[in-house]
Order: sequence, then C-alpha cells, then structure tokens
Amino acid sequence: MTINEQLEFLKKGTVDVIREDDLRAKLERFAKTGKPLRVKLGLDPTAPDIHVGHTVVIRKLKAFQDLGHTVIFLIGDFTGMIGDPSGKNVTRPPLSREEVNANAETYKRQMFKLLDPEKTELRFNGEWMDKFTASDFVKLCAKTTVKQILERDDFTKRLNEEKPISLHELLYPLVQGYDSVALNADIELGGTDQKFNLLMGRNLQREFDQEPQVVITTPLLEGLDGVNKMSKSLNNYIGIDESPNEMFGKVMSISDELMWRYYDLITDLTPAEIATLKSEIEAGKNPRDVKVNLAKLIIKDFHSAEAAQAAEDEFNRRFVKKEVPDEIAEVVIAAQTYRLADLVVASGLVETKGEAKRLIDQGGIKIDGEKATAASAEIDMANGKSVILQVGKLKFARLKAD
Amino acid sequence: MTINEQLEFLKKGTVDVIREDDLRAKLERFAKTGKPLRVKLGLDPTAPDIHVGHTVVIRKLKAFQDLGHTVIFLIGDFTGMIGDPSGKNVTRPPLSREEVNANAETYKRQMFKLLDPEKTELRFNGEWMDKFTASDFVKLCAKTTVKQILERDDFTKRLNEEKPISLHELLYPLVQGYDSVALNADIELGGTDQKFNLLMGRNLQREFDQEPQVVITTPLLEGLDGVNKMSKSLNNYIGIDESPNEMFGKVMSISDELMWRYYDLITDLTPAEIATLKSEIEAGKNPRDVKVNLAKLIIKDFHSAEAAQAAEDEFNRRFVKKEVPDEIAEVVIAAQTYRLADLVVASGLVETKGEAKRLIDQGGIKIDGEKATAASAEIDMANGKSVILQVGKLKFARLKAD
Repeated sequence: MTINEQLEFLKKGTVDVIREDDLRAKLERFAKTGKPLRVKLGLDPTAPDIHVGHTVVIRKLKAFQDLGHTVIFLIGDFTGMIGDPSGKNVTRPPLSREEVNANAETYKRQMFKLLDPEKTELRFNGEWMDKFTASDFVKLCAKTTVKQILERDDFTKRLNEEKPISLHELLYPLVQGYDSVALNADIELGGTDQKFNLLMGRNLQREFDQEPQVVITTPLLEGLDGVNKMSKSLNNYIGIDESPNEMFGKVMSISDELMWRYYDLITDLTPAEIATLKSEIEAGKNPRDVKVNLAKLIIKDFHSAEAAQAAEDEFNRRFVKKEVPDEIAEVVIAAQTYRLADLVVASGLVETKGEAKRLIDQGGIKIDGEKATAASAEIDMANGKSVILQVGKLKFARLKAD
Repeated sequence: MTINEQLEFLKKGTVDVIREDDLRAKLERFAKTGKPLRVKLGLDPTAPDIHVGHTVVIRKLKAFQDLGHTVIFLIGDFTGMIGDPSGKNVTRPPLSREEVNANAETYKRQMFKLLDPEKTELRFNGEWMDKFTASDFVKLCAKTTVKQILERDDFTKRLNEEKPISLHELLYPLVQGYDSVALNADIELGGTDQKFNLLMGRNLQREFDQEPQVVITTPLLEGLDGVNKMSKSLNNYIGIDESPNEMFGKVMSISDELMWRYYDLITDLTPAEIATLKSEIEAGKNPRDVKVNLAKLIIKDFHSAEAAQAAEDEFNRRFVKKEVPDEIAEVVIAAQTYRLADLVVASGLVETKGEAKRLIDQGGIKIDGEKATAASAEIDMANGKSVILQVGKLKFARLKAD
C-alpha cells in the first residue's frame, strides 16, 4: 500500500485523527526505516468481558498490526488497584493483584481472537506508577494547569451542575497521559469519550521532549436497541465469547438502519463494498439477506466460517423454514392409540387438555411438521413409532412409543 | 493560671482561633493528664533569615511552650527540594539537601533566641513525604474536592482573573494538611495568609480519624513603612540578627501609630499595660520616650537588657545630646599650629580647603563639641595634644599631634 492508501485504510471509521500530518510523517518514517510504530490502547481492568462494541477500536488496532506495527495493550492496574478511594463510587472498589491478573488473562484470550499475540505487547502501568514517588507526582502535576484539566467535558458538566469532583479524579488523566510517555507511544487509540485523556498524552510527551503521539478516536457503537452505547449493564450487547447461534439471533434482531452502522464499524468491508450492498437493496434485494451476511461476518471473526454457516442453517431451520432443530428432547410414551389432545398433554409441552385443545384450534400444533387441526383425531402410536410434536414456534418434543 | 486565664493569654494578639471550644477542651485535658499538647509551626526552608515579622507567630509558639507544651518546628523540605517544578516561579528554584539543612540551622539559631531548644522538636516533612507513593498521593487527593481547594482566596482570585494555576499547586495545601496528620498535631499556628492551609490539616485529621487540630492565626506585621507586610524584599524589616544599634535606630524611625501595633504583636506587654502607656501620652508624656521603651524591649528579646541600654545611650549621644560616639578613628597629624581650614583638611574628613571653608561658614564644623566659625582661626597642635573634630552630624575624627 502507498502511504496515501495506508492513511485511507487507517482513517476508515474513525472520528478524530490528531493530527493527520503527524500520522503521515510517522508512516513515512516507518516506510524508510522499517522501525514499527508503537500503537497503544489502554484498558480499564475492571470489566473483564469484551463485547463487539469494544472491537471497534480493537479492529483499528488490528489495522495497524496488519501494516506491521507494534500493538500495546496497556492494563491500568495502578488505578484499578486504587479503585475509587473517595468511596463514593460503588462500581469502582479496589481490585486485588489476582483480580487484575485474571481480568488481564480474559482480555488476552478474548482480544487474541482478533489480534496476533506474537505482535502484541501486554503491559501494566503499575510497572512505572508503582515506582513513582510523591515528588514525581508533584512534578507531573506541574506540567498542566487546573483550567486545562477542568476543560474535560464531564468535569465542566459536573462543575456547572455543582456536583462534586474529587481531587484525585484530576490525577487520572495525567497518569493516562504519562503512560504514553513511559511507553514512548507513537499513536494512541480510544473511543471518542477518551479524546481528552488521549490528548493529555500528547501534551505530556511534548513536556518530556518526546515526539507527541497521534490521537485516533473511534465512534462508540450503539447497542442492539440502536439508541444507547453498547454496554453490558444495559444488556444490549453481543459478547465476543457468545455462541454463534446467540450472535446470529442478536444480529438478526437489529434494525436495518443499525445494520449499516455495524457494517461500517465492525466489519472489514470497504466503503465501496458497503455502498454496493445498499444499492442492491434499492434494486429490490431483501434487507434480511444483507443482515444474514453481517451476522456471518461477525461470527467468522470470533468463531469460524463453518460456525457462521451452521448458525445460519440452524436459524433458518427454526425460524425461517419452520423446520425442527437438530436437538430435540425425546419423550417416551406408552404404545397405544391417542386422541391428538391427549398426545399433546402426554408430551409434557402443555399442561392441560383444555390448553391443548385451544392450541390445536388456533393452529399452533404440528405433527411431523404438518399442522394438526382436530383435537379428537386419532393417532396410532404403536411400539417403536416416533413423531415430532411442535407447540408454537419454539417448543419441540420427539415422542417415542415404548 | 486557670484555664480561662490560659485562654486569654493564648488568644492575645491572634486573629482566628478555630475553634475556641476545642482549644479549651485540649487545655483541660492537659491539666488533667499532664500530657503536653503538640503545637506545630510549619516553615518554608527557602528564606533562612528571620525578621521580627516572623516573631509574631513565634511568640505565640513560645506562649504555648511557657505553658509546658511541646513545640514543633516543621521544615517543609519535601516541597522546598521540589521547588516550583512548573519553572514559572524564579523565586522558588529547588533547594539541595545541603541548602535545606543550612537554612534549618539558621532557623534554629535564630528561633532559639526566643524559644527553649530543649522543649522544641525540629522535624522535616521529607521524613514521611519521601516515603509517600503515587498511590498514597491519589488516596490523599481523594479526601478533598476540587471545589474545596479552589475556594482558597488566592486560587479564586487567579481563576477569576484567568491567571493560570498549575495543578501541582493544588497539592501543596494537602501536603501541609497531611503533615499535621503525620505529626498528630493538636494545634497549628500560622499567619492569616495560612488560614486555608491550616484548616486543611483540620479536615485531613478528621479523615484520618484523628482529633482535629485547633487553628490559630496571627496578624501579618506591617514593616517600618507602616503600609506593607514586613519583608526582606521590601527592605522594611528588622532582622533578628541585626545589631542593637540598628534595631534601635529602626524602631525609632517608625510612626507613633505603628508603634502601638508593634507593642501589641511583638512585646509581652498585656493589653492593660499598653493602655496605661497610651493614657500617659494623653496626659502629656513624650511619645518618643514610649518608642525608646519599645526599642529596648525588642533588643532585650534578641540580645540583652544591657545591650538595649547601651543602644539607647549610643543613640542619645549621637542623635539627641549631639555627643560624640564611643569609637572614633584616630588620625595622627604633624605637631604644629594650624589654621582651622587646614586642620579640617588634615583630618581627611574633607577633601579641599574650599569645601572646609564652606562648611565652617555654614556652622558644620565642631572642635571638641564647640562650633568653630572662623576658617582662619589658629589652633595650636603641640606634640601629644588631641582634639575631636566633627564634620556635619555623622563624621568624626580624633586628631593627635605626634
């Protein structure tokens, strides 16, 4: 790729690149010297599970890795092990070293589904922050002004609303910025909500006579509801450890509009390829098929192409072709002739004969895939015979006479 | 002294006592248990010379010492050795350990003119701050809010004027406050400009489950000009290392109004005794004599009663009775008869005969205390004879014929 092509590739799906000229200069230097750029992503060790919302920025990291650069995961164990010392934040109790290490292991396992472990540096900021003295801290604080720090959006907001800001909160952006100094980072990635902290690294590197890092922010991915940021606590997420079937079902549930957002941010498709898909829909293609394609792309990233195909097949069997799923519980019943309503009750899927009759009348019962409409119809279940009984869309039982 | 008498004695000449009830409780506990209170005064190690302006608060310290309590001088070597790391303040470059120690020695020598060295603890906050980790610092910062810190007068002023406040400046009040925790101080003294920092100690002690210290502030003493705070840089000070004669002359130069301020703040006179002096002046006494008394009281504190009397005598001789000083340089001249103008030139006090004549005409020359008015008068300087020649108010020579 030419430098211009690299720039286009790296900029795809980002919000800020500060500054593009600096990024170009760094890429040119790499082309000349072959010395890989150091690309940093800092992670809070308090939330061990990664969802696809996190992968927006991880994919950007992968883009750098694919171009031959060094990727650094930085786990913020220093701050994680302090927690929120003001005691005002119940969601940030201090973590033990064991918890931090366990979370780091989970991160690694999950992130290495996307990234090459061989080309990834895993670091902890305790490596340098635990050696920091009070005097070092005072000197670090001298490198910024109160006004600069309070300009961070959430600080400004809380000041305006007269909500308290604990003094230690002002120190965290400085620590994050100093991490870039300690790592001699060329580039730092983060969500748009991290922009201020990333810029702090740029400032501090200048103060420490380093070349300032390029700051690249990526959008925050909306969750399945299409409104809120994807998050575990809102239960609108796709976890990257989830099964192919779960992933497939969740992707199929999103709106057509949100589908394009996911195409943009969590697939490798180029803008041109995405534009083609859009024009196909305008020409009459069913958006559902395009969504199936998205689901399979996502599953492929975290499982495999085969798993993606199997998930599609399974989904079609259950919800599209109305076929029965692969695995159905077997229920052994006495060998005899049954009235249909009695057979439904014998399956255990329905509790009373009255409910069975109602379901039959509504067309909600199938025998071997055929709708059964007469509650009093006789069905011969001779010894060894088996039928598949389906109640509604989701309940199945294999009835076997024995 | 009863507790009430002690309270009156300790409150004399103070601005704030926060809170008086707490001070009473601590004094009562001392009366009961005999365990001395720990009374802290923090000093910046950057200014080794102490002037009488500093002694306002030192005298208050002495009052506690005289009542049997433990006095602690705390040298802020931790911050002194950092200096102003923002590099914006040329007056606060970092000090070396040697400089801090040398300044501490000077303090001790000077302060022990007033205080009993046996009952005084000399401490350095580096003892605990040098062991402080970055994590300790974050936890300390969590104990206060940004709003609380920015309420300090000079911070509010600078914020309003949009003048920058470096982030590390916010940490210093916390360090000063934490010093009180480390020392388990019962009382902290300081000038009114230190009130915020002293109260921070009170807050932090509460956070660390200690009984909060009582905060006592003393006024800032005006310098000789009666307008500005006494300071070395304004050259309006009386240094406690100055000679008795210098002290006497400086005190005699202040206004009558300022004299009462000095009586209040840097003498042991009770309010009743000072009121008596005022009424004596109203009854016709010369304020000058009351000022002489003040000068002698101050000299007595830093030198001795004898030195005070000698300084008064010397001052009277030179400036009041127009007598000649004790020590006059001897000039040996040839034994012969001189015209007065020639004798003046021979003394070396005047350069030309023309100037000598002019001074004689103006009445500016005295021989043995008598004004000499005729430039051509003959004076017999036989071998062994000596006369005292005075030129103007200040120049003297003992002329001896040999």
